[in-house]
Amino acid sequence: MNFKERGLLIVLSGPSGVGKGTVCRVLREEKDNNLQYSVSATTRKPREGEVEGVHYFFKTREQFEHMIEHKQLLEHAEFVGNYYGTPVEWVRETLESGKDVILEIEVQGAFQVKERFPEAVFLFLAPPSLQELRNRLVGRGTESEDVIKQRLLVAREEIELMDAYDYVVTNDEVDKAIDRIKAIVTAEHCKRERVASLYKKAMMEVI
Amino acid sequence: MNFKERGLLIVLSGPSGVGKGTVCRVLREEKDNNLQYSVSATTRKPREGEVEGVHYFFKTREQFEHMIEHKQLLEHAEFVGNYYGTPVEWVRETLESGKDVILEIEVQGAFQVKERFPEAVFLFLAPPSLQELRNRLVGRGTESEDVIKQRLLVAREEIELMDAYDYVVTNDEVDKAIDRIKAIVTAEHCKRERVASLYKKAMMEVI
Repeated sequence: MNFKERGLLIVLSGPSGVGKGTVCRVLREEKDNNLQYSVSATTRKPREGEVEGVHYFFKTREQFEHMIEHKQLLEHAEFVGNYYGTPVEWVRETLESGKDVILEIEVQGAFQVKERFPEAVFLFLAPPSLQELRNRLVGRGTESEDVIKQRLLVAREEIELMDAYDYVVTNDEVDKAIDRIKAIVTAEHCKRERVASLYKKAMMEVI
Repeated sequence: MNFKERGLLIVLSGPSGVGKGTVCRVLREEKDNNLQYSVSATTRKPREGEVEGVHYFFKTREQFEHMIEHKQLLEHAEFVGNYYGTPVEWVRETLESGKDVILEIEVQGAFQVKERFPEAVFLFLAPPSLQELRNRLVGRGTESEDVIKQRLLVAREEIELMDAYDYVVTNDEVDKAIDRIKAIVTAEHCKRERVASLYKKAMMEVI
């Protein structure tokens, strides 16, 4: 059916270090999918190669707190001393235009989105094991032993939070995780609740 | 994750003539999917080239009615004077072995499967007729009142049948319909209800 359909809001979350950033970067570079990526605001320092307005909007704490106060963020979280958040206006406009939006956010933020967008599709990106998660954090070489320990403890708690999600996507290999995410988006567009209401809507317009 | 997972029962149904047979034949000829196709029992006479146990299990009416009586069929239907049905034992064994099973059946049979396997995934293969109808009415406005009425009735009946299904797969092009079906199977394997408890168990063994 080609009649106008509201876009899907896809929320990709999961423990820090599981590979959300990598998965999203590869998805973003592909030309054959229709996912739109929101650019988050953060108070974290830019890593090498990160570009303002492309990877993040880098903000001071003062600027970020002003955005919170004025409800300009769909969700926000403080994680290991830094704020992360999603500017709300762009998300609403893109969904209304019929495009799917993917948000890559921390677990804390996903719950806030669920309150404001219960119809969003929640994907939990899960590491194949906590050992693997630890290896990845160590391999990144940018985190201290204390930060790694803290993140593993957080990850264990976050795994308990899977129950609030619609799907669990294991990130054993990036390409496989991406195929699963794209399959989920395709399947969600075929959900009967979604399609039947569109058929009915089109029917009403016809009659 | 390598833990043992029960297979999915995928039920592909939809209005007669929508193209279920074609879609299933193409899926069956592909080598890159793990779907198992059940062999139906039938009282119809074998056609040339049809092999017992490969294309059908050929039965007498007495044998078939014995199977019905002893609940050895997951579903069955009578069509143009012949019985057709799905032997339940093979389906259960295949699912237990971890493989996915796809059943291509008429709408009548799908409702019987839903009673015995409510956890099955129900796919409604839909013709893009409403779209054609809509295009004609909106774009050209040349159809007679009778044709419009007839098409509206067909579309309305189809929409009502949809409500018992989990997904609606529009069969606009066979390849696209097949991609959607494969995406739905992948997505169903990622469903949180299915994965989370097994996942947590495997995860905690690592710590």
